[in-house]
Amino acid sequence: MLERIRIILVGTSHPGNIGGAARAMKNMGLSDLALVAPRAQFPHPEAEHRATGATDILSRVNVYDTLADATTDCTLIAGASARNRNMPWPLIKPRALGEQLKATLPNPQAQAALVFGREDRGLSNEELHQCHLHVNIPTNPDFSSLNLAAAVQVLAYEARLALHEEAEAQQPPFGTEWDVPFATGEDLERFFVHLEKTLVDIDFHNPNNPRQLMARLRRLYLRAQPDTMELNILRGILSATEKCAATASTSKSAGQTQHQGHSDTDPHHE
Amino acid sequence: MLERIRIILVGTSHPGNIGGAARAMKNMGLSDLALVAPRAQFPHPEAEHRATGATDILSRVNVYDTLADATTDCTLIAGASARNRNMPWPLIKPRALGEQLKATLPNPQAQAALVFGREDRGLSNEELHQCHLHVNIPTNPDFSSLNLAAAVQVLAYEARLALHEEAEAQQPPFGTEWDVPFATGEDLERFFVHLEKTLVDIDFHNPNNPRQLMARLRRLYLRAQPDTMELNILRGILSATEKCAATASTSKSAGQTQHQGHSDTDPHHE
Repeated sequence: MLERIRIILVGTSHPGNIGGAARAMKNMGLSDLALVAPRAQFPHPEAEHRATGATDILSRVNVYDTLADATTDCTLIAGASARNRNMPWPLIKPRALGEQLKATLPNPQAQAALVFGREDRGLSNEELHQCHLHVNIPTNPDFSSLNLAAAVQVLAYEARLALHEEAEAQQPPFGTEWDVPFATGEDLERFFVHLEKTLVDIDFHNPNNPRQLMARLRRLYLRAQPDTMELNILRGILSATEKCAATASTSKSAGQTQHQGHSDTDPHHE
Repeated sequence: MLERIRIILVGTSHPGNIGGAARAMKNMGLSDLALVAPRAQFPHPEAEHRATGATDILSRVNVYDTLADATTDCTLIAGASARNRNMPWPLIKPRALGEQLKATLPNPQAQAALVFGREDRGLSNEELHQCHLHVNIPTNPDFSSLNLAAAVQVLAYEARLALHEEAEAQQPPFGTEWDVPFATGEDLERFFVHLEKTLVDIDFHNPNNPRQLMARLRRLYLRAQPDTMELNILRGILSATEKCAATASTSKSAGQTQHQGHSDTDPHHE
């Protein structure tokens, strides 16, 4: 349906903006660019340069004398407008425009136009009055004039989201595309038993005076939702730590006076 | 809260992109720009040029050697990534990033960073592994590399929407900012009575064989939700039409044979 959204640039002065708009369009899957009475020379090397790989869109641009000529086949015409003008007109935000496109374009006869005005003074009232609705991109009120290609980027992005990405626009559940299975509750509980035993072995943890140690560690690890490979790594570390503790304990009992200095080691400092 | 979102550009090659990013930031109300090991010369006239009125942001830019240096105070670091890399990492869409910022930034200790990589090869794996999460802007899979300033524009736009514009992001009810009161049901019913009478007067409408004429006209006018001024205009037209019909009828009865030709006039064609 994105192919039935025409981007129309009216009276554009800078050829770079035409190229930037073409690139933004192609990034979002749009392909139909029209120019109305461009003030910039077109074609122009600066347009090609800013379009990067979107020169195919530039090569298919149609140029018209008036906005009416560019929209003869359009059933939904939305004009970008920085502010409401003297006569109020239906005025929506880009996200609502996405919804409108989603409601409109499934009809195969529908053809949409998103119209962008001159860099210095936007669309004329006459042009705005040819639009079914006006779209206002939310901006910092102290600095509200978007670059033309940036404005095209935002509306094309909302169009793509509404028409192609809706299901994905919501955050996919964590781990949707994970490559390793997540650890099960059973795996995790075995790990916590192992962890607690190891912490006792290294004299870090006293089960008779546990404070909140295990609870805090559980919260940390559970929050991270470890996968089975990560859990294997953690358990490998615990096993290695246990072995080390066993060795230390053996050597301690073998020659307690000899290793007296070790009692200064802060077990919290690893 | 937007002031606690830092935009970090890593290894940027083109000074124009630094300026374009600054402009996109300021348009959305962001102000904190950091550069990590820029490959572009900076400051640079092309950056100033593309920043347009956002040179205040350029004049406050901090430049760092490494991403770690630029994020020492950051509690949420999100890296823009065109694709998931060899090791999956939490990967979200820009809209979900907005939600995350909205959940995070009300805490006054929170500081966010949105990190953007090199024009030609994005962020390194090492840099991506310094991020809490990765953000993927939905794009056309055949042409997925966004211009750097355009990528900043999209994420800054979602940040602004989430933090400042949420209530407005929904389409405001039609007419929220209308300058003339809307017509009431009573006004409208009087209008429809007037309309029907006029249509009878001009021999367009036969109330004994109404088909769906009035229903269709009601649906049309009601859909447009006329304001009182518009309704006055419509009623003015009806009054003028009635007068005309009265004159025609008088002259008809005065000299019926004389005006025979009028009967050919198609009353549907006005």
